[in-house]
Amino acid sequence: MKNAGRVYLVGAGPGHPDLLTIRAAELLKTAEVVVYDRLIQDEVLALCKPTAEKIFMGKPLGKHASRQDEIHDLLVRKAREGKAVVRLKGGDPFLFGRGGEEAEYLAAHGIPFEIVPGVSSCLSAPLSAGIAVTHRDRASSVAIVTGHSADGNDDRLDWCALSKVDTLVVLMGVHNVAHIAQHLMAAGRSADTPAAIVQMAFWPGERVVSATLGTITDEVRWAQVEAPATLVIGEVVCLREKLKAYQQHIGQIMQAAGPATVRDTSIPVVPIPGLPTGGDSTLDALNVEEESCLIPGPGEKETLQ
Amino acid sequence: MKNAGRVYLVGAGPGHPDLLTIRAAELLKTAEVVVYDRLIQDEVLALCKPTAEKIFMGKPLGKHASRQDEIHDLLVRKAREGKAVVRLKGGDPFLFGRGGEEAEYLAAHGIPFEIVPGVSSCLSAPLSAGIAVTHRDRASSVAIVTGHSADGNDDRLDWCALSKVDTLVVLMGVHNVAHIAQHLMAAGRSADTPAAIVQMAFWPGERVVSATLGTITDEVRWAQVEAPATLVIGEVVCLREKLKAYQQHIGQIMQAAGPATVRDTSIPVVPIPGLPTGGDSTLDALNVEEESCLIPGPGEKETLQ
Repeated sequence: MKNAGRVYLVGAGPGHPDLLTIRAAELLKTAEVVVYDRLIQDEVLALCKPTAEKIFMGKPLGKHASRQDEIHDLLVRKAREGKAVVRLKGGDPFLFGRGGEEAEYLAAHGIPFEIVPGVSSCLSAPLSAGIAVTHRDRASSVAIVTGHSADGNDDRLDWCALSKVDTLVVLMGVHNVAHIAQHLMAAGRSADTPAAIVQMAFWPGERVVSATLGTITDEVRWAQVEAPATLVIGEVVCLREKLKAYQQHIGQIMQAAGPATVRDTSIPVVPIPGLPTGGDSTLDALNVEEESCLIPGPGEKETLQ
Repeated sequence: MKNAGRVYLVGAGPGHPDLLTIRAAELLKTAEVVVYDRLIQDEVLALCKPTAEKIFMGKPLGKHASRQDEIHDLLVRKAREGKAVVRLKGGDPFLFGRGGEEAEYLAAHGIPFEIVPGVSSCLSAPLSAGIAVTHRDRASSVAIVTGHSADGNDDRLDWCALSKVDTLVVLMGVHNVAHIAQHLMAAGRSADTPAAIVQMAFWPGERVVSATLGTITDEVRWAQVEAPATLVIGEVVCLREKLKAYQQHIGQIMQAAGPATVRDTSIPVVPIPGLPTGGDSTLDALNVEEESCLIPGPGEKETLQ
């Protein structure tokens, strides 16, 4: 094999281009081929050089197995053409998302590769909502699973063990939230345990719904939370209440009037048949909290004084 | 409070400056004050603007409580002087390291802040050693703790629960490795479970020791592994054997001769009294694997073809 190329398995982080690593941005700017998934933002792909071949390989539901084979073959083929290939994955390439399998396949076919870690949403989604997954007084252990692993037909998770870890983070946690909450409560975790779901962390349109393990399922449904969303369960969720008035987000413009204007708490409320409606009073009645966090585009960055 | 400053709680990632996020690098370049810990590399601090006030606030052993109070007061004082203050922490600011407490203190004192997530060593240290912490066939759950939480006198961890999570990552895992291994085996985790420790991931001088849960304690001692080091326990550790011949690292120069020359597997072996000596054959006899991974400095970056 002469003039062999190389594959870079690169974590794209939570989505905002400023949360790429410098290494990831540098590789995107020089790669000849970029193979990317769903959940990669246009602003990130915009970093690629104009002549780069950008190939979308997101997986339609139900076609994961054959699609993964296609990805493997594509990476090997492009590398053997002598190309510098970036395989761009949301978050971190070695936490779920089958990055390990891709690296195995490359190694088995003699293709050299580099793995570039990324900011994982297992930490950054809670962080964006003002939740530190560990806390000196409240949480010394964290467990991470995906909602897909919690599927009723293919449940390989030990819920009894997971219920005893201080903080549980569930990536892609929205679809199976009912199943997850039921399992944890059946294993002895209190229904009063704080829980929050963070939709589209660090993306435009970020939303947070805070509740308890006992109420999170109804509130996620009521608020029509959609994927991608990260579920966090544990005492640490309470930290959000203390931080949210003063926590600002990437690109947010500091208002001269002070922190009270920093977060826009208005959201479009869409009534759902069979559930009560009524705006803020309904929010209060359901003990639900929901906010949007506006993130201006890259052209509107804040300026440090 | 007029002309208020702001605090940025920033994750510095595993240490290599190219693994900072773009946001972190941008803030370092513009901050007027940078308050940093141990484990922040000089190459990262070199990004600060020349006029920035750089304040080291690493914690000497045994003085954590008072030092943390000093850090809190310093951040509030500098922000009230109207400064843009970066509080730089290794890894991610909201996974251990007391970032949550710092944010709480800032909020309680009315100081606006932004939290910038970073690449955490809980994923990047295993990744650097060729270990994906999850794998479709081998691991659907990951738990993260610190070795400090595993201290004999202050053990708040549920080892029975932790022993049943597929992959366990222990940050700062070197000093209490014996204690951790004993607890997990007593809780039923097999002594044959693969285990590895990664010292100084993504730093010059990175080393990896692979073993099993039953042998890791002796091998860590024999190889004189020092902090900072991350311990990984679980079937996924086996992935390393498949990947290591082809996995390259940031800044490594691709040799024309091919992948066999990519990793430098020579290490300085220091004999320890009471343990057998004899170079490679001793390594084999002890079933220990240890490697160094040379990472050239920022001036020696590889060039993409």
